[in-house]
Amino acid sequence: MKRIPIALTGSGHVSRAFITLLREKESDIEARYELRFDVMAVVRAEGCLFSGQPLGVNQVFKSGGPWIDGNPSWRQGMRISDIFKPAGRGGCLVECTPSDLKSGEPGLSYIIGALESGWNVATASKGALVIAFRKLRSLAASQGLALKFSGATAAALPTLDVGLVSLAGAGIEGIQGILNGTSNYILTKMADGLSYEDALEEARSWGIAEPDPSTDVEGWDSAAKLLLIANACLDTDLALEDVKVSGIADLPVSYVGEARKEGKSVKLLASAAPKKTGRGWRLEVRPTLLDMTHPLFHVNGTEKGITFFTDTMGSVTLTGGRSNPRGAAAALLKDLINIYRGRL
Amino acid sequence: MKRIPIALTGSGHVSRAFITLLREKESDIEARYELRFDVMAVVRAEGCLFSGQPLGVNQVFKSGGPWIDGNPSWRQGMRISDIFKPAGRGGCLVECTPSDLKSGEPGLSYIIGALESGWNVATASKGALVIAFRKLRSLAASQGLALKFSGATAAALPTLDVGLVSLAGAGIEGIQGILNGTSNYILTKMADGLSYEDALEEARSWGIAEPDPSTDVEGWDSAAKLLLIANACLDTDLALEDVKVSGIADLPVSYVGEARKEGKSVKLLASAAPKKTGRGWRLEVRPTLLDMTHPLFHVNGTEKGITFFTDTMGSVTLTGGRSNPRGAAAALLKDLINIYRGRL
Repeated sequence: MKRIPIALTGSGHVSRAFITLLREKESDIEARYELRFDVMAVVRAEGCLFSGQPLGVNQVFKSGGPWIDGNPSWRQGMRISDIFKPAGRGGCLVECTPSDLKSGEPGLSYIIGALESGWNVATASKGALVIAFRKLRSLAASQGLALKFSGATAAALPTLDVGLVSLAGAGIEGIQGILNGTSNYILTKMADGLSYEDALEEARSWGIAEPDPSTDVEGWDSAAKLLLIANACLDTDLALEDVKVSGIADLPVSYVGEARKEGKSVKLLASAAPKKTGRGWRLEVRPTLLDMTHPLFHVNGTEKGITFFTDTMGSVTLTGGRSNPRGAAAALLKDLINIYRGRL
Repeated sequence: MKRIPIALTGSGHVSRAFITLLREKESDIEARYELRFDVMAVVRAEGCLFSGQPLGVNQVFKSGGPWIDGNPSWRQGMRISDIFKPAGRGGCLVECTPSDLKSGEPGLSYIIGALESGWNVATASKGALVIAFRKLRSLAASQGLALKFSGATAAALPTLDVGLVSLAGAGIEGIQGILNGTSNYILTKMADGLSYEDALEEARSWGIAEPDPSTDVEGWDSAAKLLLIANACLDTDLALEDVKVSGIADLPVSYVGEARKEGKSVKLLASAAPKKTGRGWRLEVRPTLLDMTHPLFHVNGTEKGITFFTDTMGSVTLTGGRSNPRGAAAALLKDLINIYRGRL
């Protein structure tokens, strides 16, 4: 059995779900993969939780939030590099800080620090990869380390596994995806006849939409995921500014309703298609009319989906995958296992 | 750039498509993966095609069939072990002989020979794995070799990649699949009103059904694929006799037509579900009524699909993937790349 030290960044829902899941699956992971992941540190800007022993969820969270004051494991001023260096190579950073799509921080610094210290990386946050995917991929490759980011690209829906592993050797001719559950839920409710505002309110009341839903409904969450999938699977080197984005906030409910009457469906579609002139790819997120034969037509509610169009394998469509912190935590765990397991 | 010798068994459509695809993709595979696969031998019961140089499709096939008489590369009496041994470890057997679900031969002997000689294996034929999956998996693992069989489990639809890689760490609670394109095509046509015989005739005229379609329509092709997926992803150790199988040949057209009128759909569903009493799994292939909310409801014609139900990731559904020799060849190439590429 191999024991792998984990440094966890971020103290939100995904971090919490991850620590909980790790404990829940501990004996199963040992039995099936001969692996054990120990959360040795939880890293924050001002210090770390660190006790020299693996941390459980009750040593990290208290009363629904991160536990610092009075926590015997809290080390004020301790930095992430204080974890990496003494532990040696071969641990894994699990990066769950909020995605800042403009600076990529604080995740970017954490990830660079990990890779430069010989640690692998599994990240659920998008910012660093949106800003610096090529640089990070090269850095990882030059060290023989893994840089995994299923958790940042639709999480439990295995977009990258399929694009990178299952379609290896095939020529991808286009990608279309419904990559944001919140906007898809709102569109589904609008097709049922609700106004945009009422649909958003309903999404908020179920905890599906965040208090500020702008990243989701304006299309930037979809755009960031599309960008990461394209840069990884199509080997493009594009930036978020290269993605043409329009969201669903200005969509008249009559347009969505009419579509349903005609047997069609309006989806916030994220797509990568070859440029009509010359080489390169055009990335776009916009409300799109799909007819019934489209493989993503039936993706409703908070569900997500993606279709890869290829030269040799036809089209391959993935749908489903839980859209919640537990699903994201499961995607992180999946990446961890695939980094450390033996060959298949 | 790494050059990998390939020994190819079988001289049918898949072998032909594989050699053709390899040549077509040669420069692309070199550029993207720094790999080159050379078909050094094509192996038959009576001898091998072998010239010491990589073989192209025109050195293997002539007038639509395998080329032996007068082929300057033909070595009567040469055996596959004569290829493995001198080449040393690290090559790959690509196994494409017809699937014999009773004996597993000749694939079984070829695969054992390859693994015992330190060669990896990618197989598109099911027989050997149906007969001896555990034994072959252990043999591969004990040698640190890969045993890949995407080509045998719905080919371009990446059932195993998702079940083994993307769902690593998740608990699979059930699997349902439409794993045979021919029977699904016939059922789709029956829902349109054709009789079973007319639908089969149409499938034959399009080259979808083989002259003897019994393996497909009686459910045994689906059962074999289900068995391989279950034994790999659920870690069961079941035999083909453990799968309860009923096919579509006796299905009244009125039953299929009535289902459509009620907004339902009849599919030849292959399913793995936990046994109601005690531990273990119940595997079954039978015509099943699906309602519109089922993720495989919309899988029509020759398309295939599979849904994994999990504890942490929700349900993940895959649909599509080309059902022809080129799709199977692409699945073999995918497996080869994933065996030899660097870490992701």
